[in-house]
Amino acid sequence: MRKVGKSSLEFSNVFLKSSGVVSGPKEKDGPLGNYIDYTFDDLHCDGDSWEAAEMNLMRKALMIALEKGNLSVSDISLAVGGDLNNQIAVSSYLMNEFSIPFIGLYGACSTAILSLINGSVYIDSGYNNYVACMTSSHNATSERQFRYPTEYGVQRTPTVTSTVTGAGVGIITNNKMDIRITKATIGEVISAGLKDASDMGRTMAPAAAMTLKQHFEDFNVDASCYDLIITGDLSLYGSKVFVDILKDYNIDLGDKYQDSGLMIYDIHNQDVEAGGSGCACISLVMYGYLCKLLKSKKMKRILLIATGALLNPIMTFQGKSIPSIAHAICLEVSDD
Amino acid sequence: MRKVGKSSLEFSNVFLKSSGVVSGPKEKDGPLGNYIDYTFDDLHCDGDSWEAAEMNLMRKALMIALEKGNLSVSDISLAVGGDLNNQIAVSSYLMNEFSIPFIGLYGACSTAILSLINGSVYIDSGYNNYVACMTSSHNATSERQFRYPTEYGVQRTPTVTSTVTGAGVGIITNNKMDIRITKATIGEVISAGLKDASDMGRTMAPAAAMTLKQHFEDFNVDASCYDLIITGDLSLYGSKVFVDILKDYNIDLGDKYQDSGLMIYDIHNQDVEAGGSGCACISLVMYGYLCKLLKSKKMKRILLIATGALLNPIMTFQGKSIPSIAHAICLEVSDD
Repeated sequence: MRKVGKSSLEFSNVFLKSSGVVSGPKEKDGPLGNYIDYTFDDLHCDGDSWEAAEMNLMRKALMIALEKGNLSVSDISLAVGGDLNNQIAVSSYLMNEFSIPFIGLYGACSTAILSLINGSVYIDSGYNNYVACMTSSHNATSERQFRYPTEYGVQRTPTVTSTVTGAGVGIITNNKMDIRITKATIGEVISAGLKDASDMGRTMAPAAAMTLKQHFEDFNVDASCYDLIITGDLSLYGSKVFVDILKDYNIDLGDKYQDSGLMIYDIHNQDVEAGGSGCACISLVMYGYLCKLLKSKKMKRILLIATGALLNPIMTFQGKSIPSIAHAICLEVSDD
Repeated sequence: MRKVGKSSLEFSNVFLKSSGVVSGPKEKDGPLGNYIDYTFDDLHCDGDSWEAAEMNLMRKALMIALEKGNLSVSDISLAVGGDLNNQIAVSSYLMNEFSIPFIGLYGACSTAILSLINGSVYIDSGYNNYVACMTSSHNATSERQFRYPTEYGVQRTPTVTSTVTGAGVGIITNNKMDIRITKATIGEVISAGLKDASDMGRTMAPAAAMTLKQHFEDFNVDASCYDLIITGDLSLYGSKVFVDILKDYNIDLGDKYQDSGLMIYDIHNQDVEAGGSGCACISLVMYGYLCKLLKSKKMKRILLIATGALLNPIMTFQGKSIPSIAHAICLEVSDD
């Protein structure tokens, strides 16, 4: 591992061994539904509470990743991850079922990429093999905790996003595989000054733009270095602000830019307002769809920037604005 | 960095550059009061909310650590840390004030050591220099979130601990200093089957014992390897259970064992029930007191095991038991 510039890392030998992606029914009905390994038929996901439902998603994603990698639980030397629940309760409680050392992370939705970065640092520094990078989100646990219980049927604003019900687990290794994790940029906390818990996209856009700018500076590259640059999850309103801020930085991503919140759902026909969000949003798009583009060599190098709104309801009640963070990682096809 | 055994790490070049410890008045009145760098006169800590108070504690600890290390904010290349608030809000909001890449962690009270372990991995792998490992807790924010607002004046049980109001920041480097961070063991989540949010000590004791046993196994050492073995924060009831479980493992720590929750307060005269707890408990004892024992060479090698009860009120309301985790780190005097 090598530190690059102010905030970035370059990895020598980190590869994606296998992954598992699991979701609820709405994600299956979305444009990327066929790329999801397993889907539950309803939001209960065979659980007797919303928390149990989310644990079932994450457990299933881990089991699928193990199975696809031809691994057993005892092959995993470290788990790194988190979720959106207070005290990352879903990850913490799920890990109680396994005898695996565990590092809990919190970066709101950016945890999807933060877990992969932090896991890669361990793998590249000799703590191998294998490290499981885990994350999940559930529409009902998130909405209740950050906004209103879904049972209330509260009217939603156009800027609100729909939290993705799902989980993504990536197992990484230092042994050569088809997909390599080569670079990362660790984000800084920044506030856009916004206070609306129903407008996370615009709240997080400055963090995504700052991390992308820092990534380009640290590695002295521009958009031409990548086949695709994905943010997750700025959705409809946030991704427009992201592009606008980049203009101020003289950065033009052209048609290489997409947002995972606009990929996971058909926003015109699926009643999701501004798009998808939640840790599982970019996780499902990354492990499910983008990794297949890389494996089939349809694309060679993709940059993913996961954003997290560090929203705390008590701070918001106290009139404070919502700070955000974004972490970036580069996935690419291994050299032949 | 080298992986050792199932769950442990050995570091090559990680040193403590400087530290800052800050507290409220009760900790100043405790047996280790003279070892705290700065104390606020009341729990408000010059803040207009409990969250602002806790942010003031953490900010002050960072400033003191920088000053003692003759460093400025721009010298810090990475901050790693967390606190007990939902969404680690105090750390997240504080980091909004600085331009420093940030990795948010959550391991309840074990975050004090988890931040030092995770930071050490980055330093030892070339992401230098310097990394700030940060944590805080506040009596009023914690009690309100996990039990009852202190303003209610709810009667406390004998097993309950008093959350320490304070913050500890350690700045680490790969350049040789007096105190070296040499070994670590990453914990697994385990549940004692207990459900009482007012009995965290006994809830966490099995996790501490498991991590100590794993540490001894991984490095093939016993208690004779250390001058002192500290848990934090099992307090009165939990530390007794810890010693009992160790007997089953045929481990006897003799008079080398102490618990930071029983060191920070005079439990007979300070109205703290079973002792101290919170991220700041072991943090204050470690950076404030134990590091001075090492610097003066009164002790040569200390093992610290920080425990975290992964208590989530919603899970507890649903009848689930409280899982726990413990992470261990070894601090020792640098070779001459």
